[in-house]
Amino acid sequence: MRIYDIESPKQIKNMSIPQLVELSNDIRSFLINSISKTGGHLSSNLGVVELSIAMHYVFDAPNDKLIFDVGHQCYTHKILTGRSRQFTTLRKKDGLSGYQKRSESIYDCWEAGHSSTSLSAALGYAIARDIKKENYEVVALIGDGALSGGMAMEALNDIGSKQKKMIIIFNDNNMSISRNHGGIEQRITSVRSSQIYRGIKHDIKSNLQTNKVGTSILNAMTSVRDIVKHDIINAGLFQDFNLDYIGPVDGHNISDLIKVLNTAKEHDGPIVVHVLTKKGKGYPYAEKDKVGKWHGVSPFDIETGRSLMKLPNDELTWSEIISRTLMDLARKDKNIVAITPAMAQGSKLLDFEKTYPNRFFDCGIAEQHAITMACGMAAGGLKPFVSVYSSFLQRAYDQINHDMARMDLPVVVGIDRAGLVGDDGDTHQGVFDISMLRSIPNLILSQPHDAKEAQNLLYTAFVSQKPFCIRYPRGNVHYDKVDQYELIPIGSWTRYDVGDKPICIVISYGYDVDNVIHKAKENNISMIVINARFFKPIDTIMINELCSYDLPIYVYETDCKIGSLSSAILEYINTQKHILNTIGIEDHFVNHGSIRTLRIQEHIDTQSLFKEIIEND
Amino acid sequence: MRIYDIESPKQIKNMSIPQLVELSNDIRSFLINSISKTGGHLSSNLGVVELSIAMHYVFDAPNDKLIFDVGHQCYTHKILTGRSRQFTTLRKKDGLSGYQKRSESIYDCWEAGHSSTSLSAALGYAIARDIKKENYEVVALIGDGALSGGMAMEALNDIGSKQKKMIIIFNDNNMSISRNHGGIEQRITSVRSSQIYRGIKHDIKSNLQTNKVGTSILNAMTSVRDIVKHDIINAGLFQDFNLDYIGPVDGHNISDLIKVLNTAKEHDGPIVVHVLTKKGKGYPYAEKDKVGKWHGVSPFDIETGRSLMKLPNDELTWSEIISRTLMDLARKDKNIVAITPAMAQGSKLLDFEKTYPNRFFDCGIAEQHAITMACGMAAGGLKPFVSVYSSFLQRAYDQINHDMARMDLPVVVGIDRAGLVGDDGDTHQGVFDISMLRSIPNLILSQPHDAKEAQNLLYTAFVSQKPFCIRYPRGNVHYDKVDQYELIPIGSWTRYDVGDKPICIVISYGYDVDNVIHKAKENNISMIVINARFFKPIDTIMINELCSYDLPIYVYETDCKIGSLSSAILEYINTQKHILNTIGIEDHFVNHGSIRTLRIQEHIDTQSLFKEIIEND
Repeated sequence: MRIYDIESPKQIKNMSIPQLVELSNDIRSFLINSISKTGGHLSSNLGVVELSIAMHYVFDAPNDKLIFDVGHQCYTHKILTGRSRQFTTLRKKDGLSGYQKRSESIYDCWEAGHSSTSLSAALGYAIARDIKKENYEVVALIGDGALSGGMAMEALNDIGSKQKKMIIIFNDNNMSISRNHGGIEQRITSVRSSQIYRGIKHDIKSNLQTNKVGTSILNAMTSVRDIVKHDIINAGLFQDFNLDYIGPVDGHNISDLIKVLNTAKEHDGPIVVHVLTKKGKGYPYAEKDKVGKWHGVSPFDIETGRSLMKLPNDELTWSEIISRTLMDLARKDKNIVAITPAMAQGSKLLDFEKTYPNRFFDCGIAEQHAITMACGMAAGGLKPFVSVYSSFLQRAYDQINHDMARMDLPVVVGIDRAGLVGDDGDTHQGVFDISMLRSIPNLILSQPHDAKEAQNLLYTAFVSQKPFCIRYPRGNVHYDKVDQYELIPIGSWTRYDVGDKPICIVISYGYDVDNVIHKAKENNISMIVINARFFKPIDTIMINELCSYDLPIYVYETDCKIGSLSSAILEYINTQKHILNTIGIEDHFVNHGSIRTLRIQEHIDTQSLFKEIIEND
Repeated sequence: MRIYDIESPKQIKNMSIPQLVELSNDIRSFLINSISKTGGHLSSNLGVVELSIAMHYVFDAPNDKLIFDVGHQCYTHKILTGRSRQFTTLRKKDGLSGYQKRSESIYDCWEAGHSSTSLSAALGYAIARDIKKENYEVVALIGDGALSGGMAMEALNDIGSKQKKMIIIFNDNNMSISRNHGGIEQRITSVRSSQIYRGIKHDIKSNLQTNKVGTSILNAMTSVRDIVKHDIINAGLFQDFNLDYIGPVDGHNISDLIKVLNTAKEHDGPIVVHVLTKKGKGYPYAEKDKVGKWHGVSPFDIETGRSLMKLPNDELTWSEIISRTLMDLARKDKNIVAITPAMAQGSKLLDFEKTYPNRFFDCGIAEQHAITMACGMAAGGLKPFVSVYSSFLQRAYDQINHDMARMDLPVVVGIDRAGLVGDDGDTHQGVFDISMLRSIPNLILSQPHDAKEAQNLLYTAFVSQKPFCIRYPRGNVHYDKVDQYELIPIGSWTRYDVGDKPICIVISYGYDVDNVIHKAKENNISMIVINARFFKPIDTIMINELCSYDLPIYVYETDCKIGSLSSAILEYINTQKHILNTIGIEDHFVNHGSIRTLRIQEHIDTQSLFKEIIEND
């Protein structure tokens, strides 16, 4: 069958194993070919071609719910559900999403872009099914990397308790987006590589004893005894979560996969199916990749593996500029350390790791832990830098608030991929962090407009010894190394006068400051352009001055408007012009005491309000 | 030694075991007596009296770092570090904090109020110590409940990988704040209650083989072979995280605790010390408590165990009102289910659990999982209600944004303890949720001003089939059950005219609306009082009308000001009065496409800005 002829997964139900194998080869070629032109997620999708086919062969979507963790491993699923013709539009506006998308297909029952959500979603579905007395299977496909995410472990713990019928396919490829570093992974790896071999029958029996798997599955398992033969790895982790377990099975052998999934389907209660796959399978460059270079790719030349995207010679990505500066500062200050939640490659920290292996910490997909561990390091006298994508930092809101800002600990957070990220879409747009973070006391939140300011802001952040966030976008910019670092006064903005009879003021941030200046000059429009390089605190002296000019003011933002920079400016202008009289808790944390006492202390008791009303009247 | 004579933990170093036992009895009496007068955390503190003494006996604080997870179990630590005289001021303004507080004592090296942060903090400290070549022990005390929190498991995984010297004391009391429900707990309980008994020596030896514990510890362990004799429970979970393990040991036997902790201190790398304690130990009412009623208490009568706090007869707590309404709605709609992250008692969901055991889900301290599981349930056709304290909801920011709002799933979140919570202090104040949530598209955020509105809002939330948050404070309010539920138009505010010549407008929310009306009447002040029962969306028609009156407007908030209701109103007024011209991403999620294309689509490209500037000029 030609790839383009697939309209529905029903079409593969009657295929023979050789036909399915042929299909998997065709899909693999299609994926390599198609992604080489459009860009997209390559390695993870190549890893689950056979597994996705087997899932659709054994289960009946859309009645059965197939949930792909992170979502970026669902390309084969998209092909099998009739979307192959749209792959030319992959990740383009109004084109095919790179993730599962409920509005795109009835076969997409769940959407994810952030990792580790699939198990919670699956348990939710399983509970709903049972309460509504409906009849369907719930299948979650989760990678070993995503398992290091706390919420996946929260879910495993709860699934082990609730014992609902569901299937967890554990896609063990020995990598997350970069490498796995966790204790769990080390255990699995050490057992995987050991020479232990026990007869499958014995293993199943002992599993049965400890796990109380029913006899029906024992019979079913007899047929899979030849499949799960490579290594018997320690199922301990899952057993400890009170979960039944079967595996590991070769994730590139469709026949074996079908047998194991059929067995799992017959199982009552939750069961983990352990599948061994190879990320990048079938494309040598991707197979050899150890650091995630072939995770998400731009268009590339299939033959040479070379990217077809070219950076201008004098430009670097913002991430690279921050990382180089970090390297430079770390050379002079041995207390500077770097932390990444599994994003060493994306955040351009591989050089740092190579140069300072003992001061580099990859903690797996674990944003919460990353921030709080950094707080512990800061409390212990280090100067930690944590690099997190804006969208993933959403996972660590509480840790930024409760641990970092509340204790006023000097952690520097590099908020990478801030602003629109483009192709990855709504799950990854980094447009919320300003609004999310701006109300947190003690925190400094900034964004450089150019490479020089990026370097100086990072320098300033470490000198400040304050909880300090620097956001920077995806993309690249002209780079020169600064000769000497300069301290940037915290909260200060800068001003550029284009022409001498300004018709307006534009307040912006990031590279748009330079865009605006450039365009104003180009069009011979006189204006005052402000580089609002701090979102918190803001430059109130500058705002006062600007307001005195009686010129129209434009706040030009490229992130979500609500609660963002313009709100900060409005809030300040309001304190001067009293458009509204506002009563509320000022920008600090409030300690303990009775509610009544604290209301008086914070001047938010009704008495204080009325005092103000009467005084103003 | 009298409790009040303790100035420093050094004073206990030379005590004999009988003296330490006597001290523990004295401390226990002191705690019961003192907390009965001031209120505070009782059960958890009674559970760790001997353990805290043993920790201070074996380790040398403040050089050694003692980290208490959640922080509410540190009362004995406070007594031993010379703070007993301040217990009369416990949780009062400017008095002793109920948690570890860095500003309060050099012995408090870490602050926590939210659970599960201790392991990340400890790893951070251990890394800092090694990099700075300092010499101290890092000891984290974490309860079994806190271990269900995802970030604790993220940390365990990372600790198993990094293998830094540190001691994790696992305080196993078979309860979190309420009960534990997780799969891990079921496994531990089943093994704990089984009759398995293996000689300790054999067990240690086999541990040594699998865990590669050094021979030095083997020798040391010989001396503890009699201690760890009660049950040998499965150390599997910790082994799976690649962690060495010793235990369990009786947490109320000081002598045994000291021996085990000394052994752990000699161990290289991370080690888990498993300690069995009884929550509420020594106070019969608290010992018998299974649901957490004695977790945090108001002043009580020691003899009878009765609370000395009395609710007025016709009043109920807000939580109780919401829960009763939920029960009532659930009676009519079988798709309504309730979810709590270990807060069944605090959120007043015990009756719901009793009445609808199959529709009630306690998922442990796991806010992230709770929200996303609820999303899965909603996708599966249920109508989930999740009750979370405002401050703890901070843990689930990403799940609210990425899973609930982005997929526009009809989950109702009851944000309990919103606003100032008082005694628990800065870690627990629920003052950030409005600012945190207001920029998330699709979300509805509301707060009732009285019991009737609370009932109707909850009814409206379920009817709306939208992601819907209802916040309500700690405390109580007059309650009458509504005869018939009424739909509240989403985004609508209500108005109360006090007197007929208003001198001002007060926009407020929650019970303060009634406070203001009451006080205005009492003082014969005419004003228009607005019940801004929705923070999102806001009532723009009402705002337009109010602005037309040319009266001073007071926005009276009792939460953090930045980004809150007044900002929402300012943002709207600004769209009418153009104080600032704002460009930015409107209130929706942005799908995929190239950054360039999306900037044009969202009208945030420089071209769009200049078009606007030129048109306005």
